[in-house]
Amino acid sequence: MHFISETSSDGVREQLFTLGDIPGVLWTPEDAVATRPLVLMGHGGGQHKKAPDILARAHRFVTDGGFAVVAVDIPAHGDRPKVEEYDRIVAEYQARVAAGEELAPLIAGFQALVARQTVPEWRAVLDAVQQLGHVGAGPVGYWGVSLGCGLGVPFVAAETRVRAAVLGLGGVLASAEAAARITVPVEFLVQWDDERVPRAQSLALFDALASAEKTLHANPGKHGELPAFELESTLRFFARHLG
Amino acid sequence: MHFISETSSDGVREQLFTLGDIPGVLWTPEDAVATRPLVLMGHGGGQHKKAPDILARAHRFVTDGGFAVVAVDIPAHGDRPKVEEYDRIVAEYQARVAAGEELAPLIAGFQALVARQTVPEWRAVLDAVQQLGHVGAGPVGYWGVSLGCGLGVPFVAAETRVRAAVLGLGGVLASAEAAARITVPVEFLVQWDDERVPRAQSLALFDALASAEKTLHANPGKHGELPAFELESTLRFFARHLG
Repeated sequence: MHFISETSSDGVREQLFTLGDIPGVLWTPEDAVATRPLVLMGHGGGQHKKAPDILARAHRFVTDGGFAVVAVDIPAHGDRPKVEEYDRIVAEYQARVAAGEELAPLIAGFQALVARQTVPEWRAVLDAVQQLGHVGAGPVGYWGVSLGCGLGVPFVAAETRVRAAVLGLGGVLASAEAAARITVPVEFLVQWDDERVPRAQSLALFDALASAEKTLHANPGKHGELPAFELESTLRFFARHLG
Repeated sequence: MHFISETSSDGVREQLFTLGDIPGVLWTPEDAVATRPLVLMGHGGGQHKKAPDILARAHRFVTDGGFAVVAVDIPAHGDRPKVEEYDRIVAEYQARVAAGEELAPLIAGFQALVARQTVPEWRAVLDAVQQLGHVGAGPVGYWGVSLGCGLGVPFVAAETRVRAAVLGLGGVLASAEAAARITVPVEFLVQWDDERVPRAQSLALFDALASAEKTLHANPGKHGELPAFELESTLRFFARHLG
């Protein structure tokens, strides 16, 4: 793990790092010295580790929850090089959008492909970050919606350190088998008028989770229109399960 | 409005009253002297104004929210006399349960029948309670699930004083038309494995609400198994909209 830069603002320390060829960012309370809960955040498709919504959420998690938060660029996103195979899939995606064809199977295939890489990468990131004195081996949470849900479901299913997860804006197609192996508490976000994920597939993914405690929050609006009050709810959810 | 008794415990003043032939109970902070938000709670079928879950919720609303809370017995419940027509419907209900027949249309008809009486009764209760110095004409919320949702939907649709409502554990059959006239924020509770309300009818009732802000919370479990953390969420919902 190689640290590139360190800055501070509003009580939050931000450290940019690389782990092998994975670029990442770690946020912690400025005065953090001991073990604390750690939340790994998976960004959305076309986004990156410091996308505005990730950054805003990370700051709230640090300042109000006292958590450490880590995010990394997924392959072909942010500071990482392009991947030819992904470009081909994106081109096919755009062609299908233009033709008004069904997108779900293509998205599902893409997510499964990327998850084969991100699951081991994210586990390695947890290993490295939890060795730092101001993070330590405390309880771990995962937050990710949209592509962050598609990649998060197989990750949460595989990684026993994760004790609670916020997922959503994702459908069952890519994820049914892995979802059935998730048993930790999940808060699952649905946008009622999601133009990308059919409502029935979204509800079916929630249904497929094997967790005894899982709670679905659905709100009106499109894929990108999560209401601000869900951030408050997410904070309380993690505080309840990681605190 | 005639007060029957007044007691206090844990900082909560409880006043039993009658308004005409409606028996009711009002909970307020012990030291309340001025106008405050008021939540009307509708109890479930076979329950009454001081059912344990109503009582526990009212105490939390008073102590943590500073609200006034009022609940009244619905016709043929609690301290009110039997209604022959209701008994006939209950007998038919039990026969249908025994025969494994569909219950939803019967429940819907029953709710519509009772609501024709409870909507004007509850409006009269608001009129009376809001004239008290320690309640006043502040913002009003409504809380009711199950039968309290079936009766609450037409009430919230009709009563412009209600600024926010918690509803749920109810289906669309009895309520679609009234739901489409509700425009205030709603938090809507669904039990994912509800043995009384088919999931699709539950989701359809949420869908039918015309509110720009409405949020559905679904949790695993049967009709009577609402998780405790939803009470916390309800409190914050009312604090946000009535505070």
